[in-house]
Amino acid sequence: MKHYYELDEWNIIEKGFDSDNNEISESIFSLGNGFMGQRANFEEDYSGNSLRGNYIAGVYYPDKTRVGWWKNGYPEYFAKVLNSTNWIGINIRINDLTLDLAKCSVSEFKRVLNMKEGYLKRSFVATLENGNEIEVNSKRFISMERCEIGVIKYSIRLLNFSGKLEFSPYLDGNVVNCDSNYDETFWDEISKGAKPYESYVMLKTKKLDFHICTSMTFELTKNGETIKPIVTLNEGEKYVSNTVSVDCYKNDELIIYKYVANTSSRYYKIPELIKITRELASIAKKDGFGMLLEEQSKAWSEKWRESDIVIKGDVSAQQGIRFNIFQLNQTYTGEDYRLNIGPKGFTGEKYGGGTYWDTEAYCIPFYLSTAKEKVSKNLLLYRYNQLGKAIENAKKLGFKNGAALYPMVTMNGEECHNEWEITFEEIHRNGAIAYAIYNYVNYTGDKSYLYEFGLEVLIAISRFWAQRATFSSKKNKYVILGVTGPNEYENNVNNNWYTNKIACWTMQYTLNVINYLSEHESKTLDELKSKVNFKDDEIVNWINIIKNMYYPHDEEHGIFLQQDGYMDKEQILVKDLDKKNIPINQNWSWDRILRSCFIKQADVLQGIYLFEQEYDIATIKRNFDFYEPRTVHESSLSPCIHTILAAKIGNHEKAYDMYLRASRLDLDNYNNDTKDGCHTTSMAGTWMAVVHGFGGLRVINNKLILNPFIPDHWCSCSFKIMFRGALLNIKFTKETLQIQNENEMPINLLVYETDYYLTGNDLLEVKLP
Amino acid sequence: MKHYYELDEWNIIEKGFDSDNNEISESIFSLGNGFMGQRANFEEDYSGNSLRGNYIAGVYYPDKTRVGWWKNGYPEYFAKVLNSTNWIGINIRINDLTLDLAKCSVSEFKRVLNMKEGYLKRSFVATLENGNEIEVNSKRFISMERCEIGVIKYSIRLLNFSGKLEFSPYLDGNVVNCDSNYDETFWDEISKGAKPYESYVMLKTKKLDFHICTSMTFELTKNGETIKPIVTLNEGEKYVSNTVSVDCYKNDELIIYKYVANTSSRYYKIPELIKITRELASIAKKDGFGMLLEEQSKAWSEKWRESDIVIKGDVSAQQGIRFNIFQLNQTYTGEDYRLNIGPKGFTGEKYGGGTYWDTEAYCIPFYLSTAKEKVSKNLLLYRYNQLGKAIENAKKLGFKNGAALYPMVTMNGEECHNEWEITFEEIHRNGAIAYAIYNYVNYTGDKSYLYEFGLEVLIAISRFWAQRATFSSKKNKYVILGVTGPNEYENNVNNNWYTNKIACWTMQYTLNVINYLSEHESKTLDELKSKVNFKDDEIVNWINIIKNMYYPHDEEHGIFLQQDGYMDKEQILVKDLDKKNIPINQNWSWDRILRSCFIKQADVLQGIYLFEQEYDIATIKRNFDFYEPRTVHESSLSPCIHTILAAKIGNHEKAYDMYLRASRLDLDNYNNDTKDGCHTTSMAGTWMAVVHGFGGLRVINNKLILNPFIPDHWCSCSFKIMFRGALLNIKFTKETLQIQNENEMPINLLVYETDYYLTGNDLLEVKLP
Repeated sequence: MKHYYELDEWNIIEKGFDSDNNEISESIFSLGNGFMGQRANFEEDYSGNSLRGNYIAGVYYPDKTRVGWWKNGYPEYFAKVLNSTNWIGINIRINDLTLDLAKCSVSEFKRVLNMKEGYLKRSFVATLENGNEIEVNSKRFISMERCEIGVIKYSIRLLNFSGKLEFSPYLDGNVVNCDSNYDETFWDEISKGAKPYESYVMLKTKKLDFHICTSMTFELTKNGETIKPIVTLNEGEKYVSNTVSVDCYKNDELIIYKYVANTSSRYYKIPELIKITRELASIAKKDGFGMLLEEQSKAWSEKWRESDIVIKGDVSAQQGIRFNIFQLNQTYTGEDYRLNIGPKGFTGEKYGGGTYWDTEAYCIPFYLSTAKEKVSKNLLLYRYNQLGKAIENAKKLGFKNGAALYPMVTMNGEECHNEWEITFEEIHRNGAIAYAIYNYVNYTGDKSYLYEFGLEVLIAISRFWAQRATFSSKKNKYVILGVTGPNEYENNVNNNWYTNKIACWTMQYTLNVINYLSEHESKTLDELKSKVNFKDDEIVNWINIIKNMYYPHDEEHGIFLQQDGYMDKEQILVKDLDKKNIPINQNWSWDRILRSCFIKQADVLQGIYLFEQEYDIATIKRNFDFYEPRTVHESSLSPCIHTILAAKIGNHEKAYDMYLRASRLDLDNYNNDTKDGCHTTSMAGTWMAVVHGFGGLRVINNKLILNPFIPDHWCSCSFKIMFRGALLNIKFTKETLQIQNENEMPINLLVYETDYYLTGNDLLEVKLP
Repeated sequence: MKHYYELDEWNIIEKGFDSDNNEISESIFSLGNGFMGQRANFEEDYSGNSLRGNYIAGVYYPDKTRVGWWKNGYPEYFAKVLNSTNWIGINIRINDLTLDLAKCSVSEFKRVLNMKEGYLKRSFVATLENGNEIEVNSKRFISMERCEIGVIKYSIRLLNFSGKLEFSPYLDGNVVNCDSNYDETFWDEISKGAKPYESYVMLKTKKLDFHICTSMTFELTKNGETIKPIVTLNEGEKYVSNTVSVDCYKNDELIIYKYVANTSSRYYKIPELIKITRELASIAKKDGFGMLLEEQSKAWSEKWRESDIVIKGDVSAQQGIRFNIFQLNQTYTGEDYRLNIGPKGFTGEKYGGGTYWDTEAYCIPFYLSTAKEKVSKNLLLYRYNQLGKAIENAKKLGFKNGAALYPMVTMNGEECHNEWEITFEEIHRNGAIAYAIYNYVNYTGDKSYLYEFGLEVLIAISRFWAQRATFSSKKNKYVILGVTGPNEYENNVNNNWYTNKIACWTMQYTLNVINYLSEHESKTLDELKSKVNFKDDEIVNWINIIKNMYYPHDEEHGIFLQQDGYMDKEQILVKDLDKKNIPINQNWSWDRILRSCFIKQADVLQGIYLFEQEYDIATIKRNFDFYEPRTVHESSLSPCIHTILAAKIGNHEKAYDMYLRASRLDLDNYNNDTKDGCHTTSMAGTWMAVVHGFGGLRVINNKLILNPFIPDHWCSCSFKIMFRGALLNIKFTKETLQIQNENEMPINLLVYETDYYLTGNDLLEVKLP
C-alpha cells in the first residue's frame, strides 16, 4: 500500500497539489466539533473537482424517498443531514484576477491536519495567469470550546509584484446536497444583512422549519499592523459578502482573520438567532485568533489525554489510529443527547448522516472507554427518546403490545431506509441497541440507568423478538425466518445464527434486569411494569422461546452455521478466487454474490465476539478458521472484529493483517471511496482492534481483563481506559504490561488469569508470557 | 359480487354516467387491433378523472431506471410503450360553450362495447350551463382489416335550442406517460400540417428515433346531407386542428366522421410516412364509415368463428369469457414477429407494455388453439430473435459459453426490470420459454421449427440451467440456490421445486430434441452444434444434473415442497385469516408477507399443471389439497391454474369458484386496479380455465384428450380447437360431449380413456359419465 499522505505521528500531511486527489483530501482533512463540521474545501474560489460541504449536526431534511418498486412498509422520506451555508469562503482577487488553484500554476503546496492541536493549515505559492506570484498561508479550525465558532487566518504575501489585493469574505446559502433524491434545494432565505465588517445570513429548511443563522466578522493586518479599509457590500439570494481592497507592494503580507458563528433553532429561539450569532462572532473577534487557537489546543490536549493510543515503532500505525481517534472526537462530543454519529461524520453526505447500528456496535465501546460516562449515556438516551417511534415502526410492520423495532437508519426515530431486505429484515440492529445498554452498565456500573431508562427499551425490544420468533412444528423449535444478518451478502435467510443468538440474549438479559430490579428496586419495577402494561406471562413466554430456540450448526465442522442452508453453497475460499473478481461487490451481479458462500463482514464471528465468554477457545478457533477464509471484508466494520478474535485465538499474524486493513482505510483510500467521506463509525472499530484485540481487554463479571500481545515490529503500545470510575493507563511492550491506576478509584483486574487489585495510583507491572 | 356493467352475452354496457368509475370504464371499453390501441377516452374535452392513452405497438422509449439502491447488474433503462398522439379528439363548442361532461348535467348516458362487431358506442343527453340541451351519439372502432385506420362517427342533435355548433377535430402530440420515471416527455415534433379537411402531425421519440405519423380527414352531414363548411386552421406545438362552425336549428342533427391513419417508422420509411398516412386516411374517407364498419364486423366474425366460447345458462360467465377473448384478439393478431403482448395490452401503461413470461405460460396455449399456426410461431420467433440479447444478459450476470437468460421484462430483448429478487432470481421464466417451444411443436406437429429455430434457444437455456445449478456436497445433490419461484411472495429461496423441475425438464427436452434430430436431421443438427459450439460433454453434464437434482418434498404430507424450509413457517390457512388482512399485499408489510406461508399464485401447482402426465391423481390431489388453502391468489395468473387442477381431481365446486374469480376479474374490478388497465395476459388463463379446466383438454403423446364436465348451472359449453391441422368443434352439456371435426384432417382423440379417430366432418357424441 502506497502512502499518499506523509507518515507522521501527529499530522496528516499532503505535499504537492494533485487536483485528482482533491476530493479525497477534502474528506481526510475535514474538521468538526460535534456540533458542526465541514469538508476541507478551499477558502478561495476553486473551479476544479470539489464537494463543498458544511454540515450542522441534527439539521436535516425529509427528502422524498426514491424507489423503483414500492413495498408496503417503506418510509415516505429519507431524512438527511443538510449541506448548509458555506461560511469559509473568501473570494480573493489579485489585480482583478480571481485566485483559483485550478487556473494558476501552484508550487510548494502543503496541507496539514494538525491532530494534536486540532487545526488545518495550508500553504502554497501560486503564479497567476498575469505572472503575479503570491505565497498563501491559511489556518483554520472549528472551536471545541465554543461550539458555534469557526475561524480562519488567511495570509497572502506578494512575491514578485506590487498591486491591488481584494478580499471578499462571504456567506453563501446557495448550496445543494449532492445526494438529493430529486435534485431539489432544501433551503429558503429568511433574512440576511451585510454591514461593513459584519454580515449574516439566516436560512430555513423548506420542510420542518429548521432555522440556521451564520454571522461573520473579520479583521485585517498588513505587515502585522491592523488596517481597516473601506468595505463594499454585496448581497444576493442567500448570499452576503464584504469586499475590501488594499494596495500592496512586493513582499507585503496581508492577513485576513475571519470569525464566524453558526447556530440553529435547535439551540436558540428563532428571533434570537441573528443577535446571538453576531455577538458570538464579535466576541471571538475580540478574543482574537491567537487566544482561540490556544483554547483549541488545550481542548484537544484534554481529548488526547483521555483517548490517545501511543504506538511506538510503527509510524504508519500510530498515524492511522490517531487519525481515527481524531475523527471520532471531532464527530461526537456527547454534549447533546439528540445527536448521534453518521457513518461519515461531517466528512461527506453518503448515507445521509443518519444513525445506524454502528453507533451501538462500534462507537459505544470507544466512548465508554475514552470519555466521560455522560457521552455514552447520551447515545443511549438518544434511542430511549426514540422508543415511541420504534414502537410505531414495529406496529407498521404488524407487531403489537409495545414491541419496538428501531430503524435501520434514522434521524428522528423514524425509519429512513428503503430496501426491504435491510429495512424490514436486518433486525439484528435491535439486539445491538439492547447490548449497548448492557455494555454501558457493565462498564460504568451505573445500574440506575436500568430502571430509569434501560429496562423500558429492553422490554420493548424483547417483545419484538418474542413476536418475531415463530414456532416451527417441523423442527419443534422456535425459529426466526426471513432476516438479513450482519453479513449483508445474504438476504432473507432463515435462522441467521447471530440474529437468533442476540434475540435470545436480549430476552434473557431483560429477564435478568427484571430479576435484579425485583430484588433491589421492586417499587420502581412495578411502576414500570404498569406503565408498559407488562404481564408476567410474557416472562413465561420468553423463557420458553429462549429454551427452545433453534440454532443452526454444522456437526462436520463443529461450527455455528451462519444460517439454514449455508452448507448447500459451493464452498470456495477467498484465496482461491481470481483476484479480478475482488471486490465482488464491484464485479459480480447481486444474485451471484448472494448465492456465493462469501461473507461481507463478521456475522457468526460478530456474535462470538459479543458473547465470547460463553465459548471455549477451541470453539472460537473452529468458527474463526471456518469463516475467516470465506470473508471478503467488503464492509469497513469487518476487519476489526476479525482482528479481535484472531488475537484471542493467538493468530497474531492474521490479527495484525486485519488491523492494517482497518486502521488506514481512509488515509490510504483502501476502498477507493474516501472522496465520499471518511468511514467515521468504523474508525471506532479500529480503536476496538487495538484495545480489545492487541490489548485483549474485556469486561466479564464486573472485572476488567487484559491479555495483551504486541505485533512483531511494534516497540510498545499504550492507551487509557475509564472503567467504573477508575482511569487506567495501560502500556505493553514485548516483555511487560504496565498498568497504572491514575485516580482514586480502586479496581479489580484479571491479567493472564491472575487477579490483581489496584488502588489509586498503583502501578502494576506484569511480565508477558 | 355486484355487476357494475349490465350482463349481456355480446356487449359490455355501462348505463348512467359515474365519473368516479370513468377510469375503470376507460380500461374496460378499450379498443385495439394488434397494431395500435387506446383507452376509451371521450372524443370531446373532459376535465374529470381520465387517463388519456393511445398506444402504438412496438414504439417504445428507454426511460431511465428509477432505483432507490442500485445493485450490480441492474439495467440502465426501462423500455416502455409510449402514449402517443391523441387522435380521437374532437373539441365541441355549443354557442361558444365547450362540451365537457364534467361541467354539464348528463342523462341517459350509455356506453356499449359491441364485442361481436368490434366497436364502441356511446350516447347521452347533456344540458349545458346555458341550458342548451343536446343528444350525442358516437361510434368508433379501430379497423381489424386496415391496421392503420381508426374512425369515429360523432353525432349531435339540438334538443331545445337553435344556435351555433363548432366541431374542432384535432391531433395532439402533447401527451405524457403517466408512468414516466422522471416526469420527462418523450416526443419531439418533426413536422405538422393543417389544411382544410386534412391535417397531420409527425413526431419522433427523443431517443431511438421512432417516428410516428398521424393524419386525419373528416366529413360532415347535417340532417343526413353532406355539408362542407369553411375551415379555420389552428396549429400549436405538436398540435393541429380544423374548426368548422355550423348554424343549426332545434332538432337538427350534425354528424362528423373522422378518419385517421396512424403508423410508424417500424413499417414505412420515414420520408414516406406523411404521404402514406394521408393516403390511407383519404381512402378510408372515400370508402366511408359504413363500408369500414361492415369490414370490421366481418373481420370480427372471422375471429369469433375461430375463438369463441359459448356458454349457455350463465350470462355472466358468457360475458366474462367473451370479454377476455375479445381483449386478447384486440391485443395481438400475430402478424408481426417483432410484437408481443404486454400485461395490460393497449388498455393502460402499467408494467410498461413489456413482454413477460405471461406470453409463454398463458397466452401461447390460447393462440395455439384458436388461431393459425403462424400466430404462435411469431410469438416464438420474437424470443428466437432476442436470443443474442438473452445470452448477453446472462453474461452480464456471470454466465458463459452461450448460456441465455431471457429478461423478466423486455421490449427489444434487453432486461428492463430492476428488483434484484425478480430480475436476477425469478429465472423460472427461462423454462417457460423452453416449454412454449415444446407446446408449439406438440400442438402443431411442426417439427421443422425445432431445427430451424427451437433447438438453438433450447441449448442456450439448458446451458444456463446447467451453470445455475450447483453441487451441494452436503446434500450430495445438485441444488438451485437463490431464486424466486412463480410465487413472488417468497424471494431468494433455495430449491424452489418448480424451478428445479422446469430446469431439469428443459435440459431433458433439449436432449430429446437432440436425439430426435440426430436420427432425422443429423446434418442440420451437426451444423447447429458447430454454430453454437456445442460439445457432447455438455450432454453428459446435463444428464448428470438431471439424475442428481434435489427436489424438496415433505414426507408427512406426501407433497412436493415449494422450497427448502417452507415447513418451518407457521402453517395457517387463508380461511383462518381475519378478512381485514386480505389482500395481504395491501395490508401487510413485505417482510410479513415473505415469512408467512401464504402463496401469491400457483407455484408447485403450476409445475404439476405443466407436467401433469407425470403424476397420479392421488399425488395431484395431495398437493392441491395442501397448497390451495394456503394460496391467496393475489396474482391474476393464479386462479386459472387452480381451476384446471381442481377440475382434474374432481373438485368441481372449487374449479367453478376459481373460474368465477378469473373470468370477471376486470369487469367486476375484483382487484380494485382495473383503472390501471385490464389484466390482458391473464385473460388467456381464463380461456385455459374453460378449455383445459372444464373441457379437460390435454395433449399427451400426440393425442388430444378430453375429459369435460360442466358446472352445475350451465346448460352447455362449446368451443373450437385447432390441433395439428384439424379444427374441432367441441360442445358439452351435463349429459353428452359432441365433437365435430370441421375440416379434412383426421385426428386421434382420447375421451374418458376411450380412443377415437375422427376424420373430416365426423361428429362424435359421447355420453358423459
